[in-house]
Amino acid sequence: MTISRADCAALDAEDPLKDLRDEFTLPEGTVYLVGNSLGAPPKSASAALLRVVEQEWGGRLVGAWNADGWFDLPVSTGDRIAPLIGAGPGQVVVGDTTSIAIVKAVSAALGLRPGRRVVVSDLENFPTDRYMVQGLTEALGGYEIRDVRGADGLDEALAPGDVACVLLSEVDYRTGDRHDTAEVTARVQAAGALMIWDLCHSVGAYQVDMSPADFAVGCTYKYLNGGPGAPAFVYVHPRHQAEARHLLTGWHGHAAPFAFEPGYRPAEGVRRFAVSTPHVLSFAALNASLDVWERVDMARVRAKSVALTSLFIDLVEQACAPYGLTLVTSRDPERRGSQVSFSHPDGYPVMRALIDRGVHGDFRAPDVLRFGFAPLYLRHVDVYDAAATLTEVLAKELWRDERYQRRLTVT
Amino acid sequence: MTISRADCAALDAEDPLKDLRDEFTLPEGTVYLVGNSLGAPPKSASAALLRVVEQEWGGRLVGAWNADGWFDLPVSTGDRIAPLIGAGPGQVVVGDTTSIAIVKAVSAALGLRPGRRVVVSDLENFPTDRYMVQGLTEALGGYEIRDVRGADGLDEALAPGDVACVLLSEVDYRTGDRHDTAEVTARVQAAGALMIWDLCHSVGAYQVDMSPADFAVGCTYKYLNGGPGAPAFVYVHPRHQAEARHLLTGWHGHAAPFAFEPGYRPAEGVRRFAVSTPHVLSFAALNASLDVWERVDMARVRAKSVALTSLFIDLVEQACAPYGLTLVTSRDPERRGSQVSFSHPDGYPVMRALIDRGVHGDFRAPDVLRFGFAPLYLRHVDVYDAAATLTEVLAKELWRDERYQRRLTVT
Repeated sequence: MTISRADCAALDAEDPLKDLRDEFTLPEGTVYLVGNSLGAPPKSASAALLRVVEQEWGGRLVGAWNADGWFDLPVSTGDRIAPLIGAGPGQVVVGDTTSIAIVKAVSAALGLRPGRRVVVSDLENFPTDRYMVQGLTEALGGYEIRDVRGADGLDEALAPGDVACVLLSEVDYRTGDRHDTAEVTARVQAAGALMIWDLCHSVGAYQVDMSPADFAVGCTYKYLNGGPGAPAFVYVHPRHQAEARHLLTGWHGHAAPFAFEPGYRPAEGVRRFAVSTPHVLSFAALNASLDVWERVDMARVRAKSVALTSLFIDLVEQACAPYGLTLVTSRDPERRGSQVSFSHPDGYPVMRALIDRGVHGDFRAPDVLRFGFAPLYLRHVDVYDAAATLTEVLAKELWRDERYQRRLTVT
Repeated sequence: MTISRADCAALDAEDPLKDLRDEFTLPEGTVYLVGNSLGAPPKSASAALLRVVEQEWGGRLVGAWNADGWFDLPVSTGDRIAPLIGAGPGQVVVGDTTSIAIVKAVSAALGLRPGRRVVVSDLENFPTDRYMVQGLTEALGGYEIRDVRGADGLDEALAPGDVACVLLSEVDYRTGDRHDTAEVTARVQAAGALMIWDLCHSVGAYQVDMSPADFAVGCTYKYLNGGPGAPAFVYVHPRHQAEARHLLTGWHGHAAPFAFEPGYRPAEGVRRFAVSTPHVLSFAALNASLDVWERVDMARVRAKSVALTSLFIDLVEQACAPYGLTLVTSRDPERRGSQVSFSHPDGYPVMRALIDRGVHGDFRAPDVLRFGFAPLYLRHVDVYDAAATLTEVLAKELWRDERYQRRLTVT
């Protein structure tokens, strides 16, 4: 290897984000490269939850809905996420799950494009995105899902002029590749369709810019470290807020939720995309994490992300060339998120062997090893150690151990 | 008053549930009669959340999805709620919110009754129930909502034979009145329609029996004390599980969620009613509360509930007869849940004055004072104190104080 562990330690010493690692809980002896699946806990999460349980819930009981701002959590938390995706106040609402958020965005988009009966979906989207579109369009009837693969085939899919909306993921969950969202959005909108971005694998990985997009959805438990099952978000461009209606018309999106009117009337603005009682405890951990994000310079996050992912690619390719690994992620940093994927025909036991040695990545069928690099808490030495362990597992064929062959349920 | 505070204290001393009060956090000096809106926190909730954050999330990170049973929370928690509603294992799934659960149940019911284009909804349902049906049926097109008021008019509504499903609340959120679910369910099913019960105001108030029903939904943050925004549940009768399909077809309801297939295939059984990543932190508090419920004899809960609500009605009617209060809730204990409502033309300032004196009920427009009696942590002396304070507020017209006239946002 051309760079030593000492070199990496020197880079860490100069890292302007280095103090942030102390704000997260990470188990001893673990190199955690699964922050693209579930981010590590901010140390402040426990105290935040205790405060909500003991002072708010226990202290003010039902009065906390007003006194502690619970009722406004979907919009107040949305306003905190907005800067991370290039949005402004009143453009993001938080709650439910990404799957539910997709139904909100897609059903609203269909309403805004009456007469157009096609939803373009990416076969590289995380599958639930397509499943939700499938459930929605089959129920509505008369709609077609037109599958593309990444942005390939997008022009052909748009050409007939019948596309209501396009649902793509800014960063591919398997490959880690990143779209040029401005260019793709412009193409989609030029064809009269609405652009919906899934930001699950980009928000918190770098500064996202949704200002040209029509809608976006995303989760908060990956790079944002909001906790397992933390609530999702929906972004609605201001140009659509007056007209957009969606299918999930719950009382928290009503213009007068406490008037108990028999009929639904949408609230002004993005609030109409809230549905029902927010999961307050799950919001507490997310907001603890957003306290950290408020102090972070996203340009530094991106610079470090590029440095860590590039270093990992370089180290692994130099050392593991003979062992059947193929880089899946783009070599161009501009074209990737904060994740590096390699394929290997025995990817599953390789990953098991790695995890057994304290290097935690994950595996996606059929053959992809995924490594996520969360710039807030990972160090250059972690990258070095991960690459060295991967090299050892491959060079010594440690993955052939029969313990690693048996399939577990993997998330 | 014919019963003294000392008499009430004597009843409390003999209460077989009396030790349970110590398991909940209640602020000093408060008589909390809003457990029908937000239950009090089990003292064990804090430790449960700390365990999940520090040992599970912090200790095992993404590995906790398997190691700590997070992935199975929707069904494992459902199996714990099932006995409270007369259901068996594999019949209840937990997650999302009641509003979302309504879309699951109603969309599934519509699929099971093709050709029938009417949803009967109760104008006395909590409004979000109707809002969700409105959003769903307007999106689907070709459906009609036929409004009834309570079970009145149900026969006329069913007579044309075009009703796919009926959505009623077992206990009315304003009046506290309770349906005879077996009788109503039989009538609905005899007309070829499916019966969907909203159990928000009955689950945990007494032993519910959903065994004849087709579907049920409910929340867990009222009598069940699962915490603010705790996840909701859906019950699906076993006779429908093989065929029932709903609109929200997410990956956690997929037959093979980790195979990442492009198309949705429903999981076996009730699991297909799960949608997406469960809100793990919110589940933690709910499961802490269910630990308490597992030790509770529901016959004792019901007996105490009847005793507390009857005592409150007696005390208030005896003392407050001259002051314009009208009992809204049924006088027959069999026909009510665990809530007592009175109407008063100045209900809003009356409730504000009561709360200011430590007796917490709530107000529902236009004129209803609601008092919930959670048998797990309320005492007969609390009922006595609440009635005495209400009497004082009315007799001395303390509610005329201008501080109490101004409207606040009330949940």
